[in-house]
Amino acid sequence: MRRKTFFLVVVAIVVGVVAYKAASGQTDGEAAPIYGIKIPPGYRDWRMISIAHVGEPVNDLRVKLGNDLAIKAYREGTPFPDGAIIARLAYKAVTSEENNKVFRVAAEKQGLTPNQIEKLLAGSFVAGPATNVQFMVKDLRKYASTGGWGFAEFADGKPSGEAVHKTCFVCHAPAKARDFVFTRDSP
Amino acid sequence: MRRKTFFLVVVAIVVGVVAYKAASGQTDGEAAPIYGIKIPPGYRDWRMISIAHVGEPVNDLRVKLGNDLAIKAYREGTPFPDGAIIARLAYKAVTSEENNKVFRVAAEKQGLTPNQIEKLLAGSFVAGPATNVQFMVKDLRKYASTGGWGFAEFADGKPSGEAVHKTCFVCHAPAKARDFVFTRDSP
Repeated sequence: MRRKTFFLVVVAIVVGVVAYKAASGQTDGEAAPIYGIKIPPGYRDWRMISIAHVGEPVNDLRVKLGNDLAIKAYREGTPFPDGAIIARLAYKAVTSEENNKVFRVAAEKQGLTPNQIEKLLAGSFVAGPATNVQFMVKDLRKYASTGGWGFAEFADGKPSGEAVHKTCFVCHAPAKARDFVFTRDSP
Repeated sequence: MRRKTFFLVVVAIVVGVVAYKAASGQTDGEAAPIYGIKIPPGYRDWRMISIAHVGEPVNDLRVKLGNDLAIKAYREGTPFPDGAIIARLAYKAVTSEENNKVFRVAAEKQGLTPNQIEKLLAGSFVAGPATNVQFMVKDLRKYASTGGWGFAEFADGKPSGEAVHKTCFVCHAPAKARDFVFTRDSP
């Protein structure tokens, strides 16, 4: 009977921990320094806010996704509430020979000059390998000294170092008028 | 009593039509020519497949979203089933002075040369106004003559003309080995 009780207690603890993790939105991965943020589970399935391209030498294509609280705030034009998270997924911008072959044929049909076609192809990129993922997590009390936002960056599931995380808020400070968020949502 | 019966019949018809529209995934908008596809309701909330940038003179940033059937096929590496829809949302690629100001400061801190910085900023774009939205709808029987896919393009909610829709399958034909879909899904 004692062993059975012990077993039930263990099961209860395991169930409790799993439930807590699910409720707190925490995964098992390592937390990023300074803000202590872990990779939010399921972020890859979040809805799209907008997209961008950053030039050489960064040369990445990036998409911003938002959890339900972030998307709701964007669409209703209301302040980001605690719990809102914006994810920035970045991918190496790479040339797709396959796409460019099709673009070339289409461009020739449309009467573009060879120079125009070269420019079109040179400026065309698809998303290649992922470079890193960043998160902005709203928590007014926890992150009071950084505008109510915590920041985190992960590459290949591992958090970047402290030096990187010291730069996040400095760069976002100029967007204070829009709650430190640069990205506007796309239609 | 007759009038009451008539009223009930009208109500039943209205309810039936609304239910049919919801079930068939059709909106009230105008159908695009040739394939007869309407804008699928809720597509803006679909999950992200990947992103890309097409160079001048098109110069757009584009994101591919997929409905649940399309995302499932991508992730499991299984054939796209009937009902799978891929959406391509395109936005004018525009320069963000606000972003570039921040990029310039960060680039200077990182020791990039003025030439490198100009190149970085000249190649950096955010998504501006929407240009148009395209859909690929899988239906093996209905679209048997075009690889099992129907195609549609809308700008500002209105379908593009027949001439545009005649070009869709021609361009997608080279991707036959991957069921006429060019875009690979991003991690």
